[in-house]
Amino acid sequence: VPGEFELIERYLAPLAADNPGSLGLKDDAALLAPPAGCELVLTVDALVSGVHFFPDDPAGLVARKLLRVNLSDLAAMGARPLGYLMTVAWPGSPEEAWIAAFAAGLAADQKAFEVALLGGDTTRTPGPLTLSLTALGAVPAGRALRRSTARAGDELYVSGTIGDGALGLLVLNDTAPKLPARQREALIDRYRLPRPRLALGRALVESGLAHAAIDVSDGLVADLGHILETSGLAGVVETERLPLSNPARAALAARPALLRDLLAGGDDYELLFTVAPGRGAEIAALADRLDLPLSQIGRLSEGAGLRLLDGDGREVPLTRSGWTHF
Amino acid sequence: VPGEFELIERYLAPLAADNPGSLGLKDDAALLAPPAGCELVLTVDALVSGVHFFPDDPAGLVARKLLRVNLSDLAAMGARPLGYLMTVAWPGSPEEAWIAAFAAGLAADQKAFEVALLGGDTTRTPGPLTLSLTALGAVPAGRALRRSTARAGDELYVSGTIGDGALGLLVLNDTAPKLPARQREALIDRYRLPRPRLALGRALVESGLAHAAIDVSDGLVADLGHILETSGLAGVVETERLPLSNPARAALAARPALLRDLLAGGDDYELLFTVAPGRGAEIAALADRLDLPLSQIGRLSEGAGLRLLDGDGREVPLTRSGWTHF
Repeated sequence: VPGEFELIERYLAPLAADNPGSLGLKDDAALLAPPAGCELVLTVDALVSGVHFFPDDPAGLVARKLLRVNLSDLAAMGARPLGYLMTVAWPGSPEEAWIAAFAAGLAADQKAFEVALLGGDTTRTPGPLTLSLTALGAVPAGRALRRSTARAGDELYVSGTIGDGALGLLVLNDTAPKLPARQREALIDRYRLPRPRLALGRALVESGLAHAAIDVSDGLVADLGHILETSGLAGVVETERLPLSNPARAALAARPALLRDLLAGGDDYELLFTVAPGRGAEIAALADRLDLPLSQIGRLSEGAGLRLLDGDGREVPLTRSGWTHF
Repeated sequence: VPGEFELIERYLAPLAADNPGSLGLKDDAALLAPPAGCELVLTVDALVSGVHFFPDDPAGLVARKLLRVNLSDLAAMGARPLGYLMTVAWPGSPEEAWIAAFAAGLAADQKAFEVALLGGDTTRTPGPLTLSLTALGAVPAGRALRRSTARAGDELYVSGTIGDGALGLLVLNDTAPKLPARQREALIDRYRLPRPRLALGRALVESGLAHAAIDVSDGLVADLGHILETSGLAGVVETERLPLSNPARAALAARPALLRDLLAGGDDYELLFTVAPGRGAEIAALADRLDLPLSQIGRLSEGAGLRLLDGDGREVPLTRSGWTHF
């Protein structure tokens, strides 16, 4: 049975091979030459088995989720990924098959997102598998997208579809409405495998279209709340305009009260961003170019607080922490 | 009782206040403008309660050790610290007194080392307290100290004193020789609170004196082994030249077999570095300027492997994994 060091050497060291600054994971620290004229963008997230993922989730998917939730934060700032560092605390002795699958998941996503491992630390833990990943990106100096820079009058856009992550979790917990197997799988996949909207974030920086942006990780209501609070503005969302996937439409038709879960649930990892009025044609052209729906769902104004309006223009009540039943 | 969010706001957010790029921990990611002409130096370490520290260790010391082990890696590359990101996985609900002491420890060290929090993530865990810290530093481009760049003929130097960390752990485990209370406390302090040799690392970069460097975290034998293997050289250490603290001398006098622990034990966080012959006067002047002993303990040559020589020039046998008894 290979030891821990051999397993790291065999499965994790190759993840750093494309990154000369990793120094082959053989030095005290890694080196990175920052691109000229850029600011660095830095984010970190921890995932704990049994808290953020199921202990029997496929190792490759866990690895990809760990990387992608961080890449989504870079996307929200409009950054290009440069590399990542990772710590892994193994419960007991790591199983070779698990590590092999974990590394294969990272390797696949490294190719997809043109990023490589810079450094890491592995250790044992008497507790559950605990992962931490720090991602580094670059953005032209002074151009990073922020939450706090939305303006009154801005139109509110969101990418992709909203609520699939929350529904995927309901499916996994056997509390979703009855759906065809293919739709159940699609929702689970959205929950397990975020799609960081890196190309969109960079395009928003390059075009200067967005005044503010955030990724939808805590749920649309909570994350829009962050933009409104830090920008000092009020917001309105028209729930009829929410972009929903076919599985989400089917689930909502079967159980209308699920609208609450779609709006308050997390794990969508779409970008929510604000744009000056009158730029709709440019947004539509960008959506075409990226092959990614970009939907206007509301607008911002002077004031404070978030209002949700249904299809008849009636207000949907919100509690302080999120939602009342309706 | 304040909730988790309030505790973070109260105790952790102020740690980011001196770092405008942290954006008050209120955005998706942090921003950092890299200094012109510099390469970034990046390192990460994880600490697990019950594995890397005792569950009842003072929270402030745990925090400072977490930060300092990473700063020591920056020191070994000759880097100036720029900031850090941190993840904390709390077992159950964090106690306010613990968090307050943890944050106070970080605040003290942030001042001492001119560094501030850039970003972080906190979560719950059903397991033990698990900490991960990523430190960023800067070094003039192309000048970072490496392990692999030692040259045949180099003299081998080490800063401070060696073995105190290992003896501190023996004292804590009640397996050290009987020593006066003050000496016991001094050794425990060395084990618990690394002194990252940042000023030395930077001076070695600026002066160009060092060909290679590493910090002594895994033990002198193991860390020197890393230099020898990556540089493709052989090394000799004269054990009589090892710089020992007064408590270490007293312990060694009481139990000569402890020499093994001094050489193989970790947690000293001194710098081990190699210098071309004939630069002794410059090293002595640097030691004076930094008020830090810098002791020549051996030399490197063509070949492979490490030999230890005692005061009579007799070889001290090494096993593959480290040591035989003697």
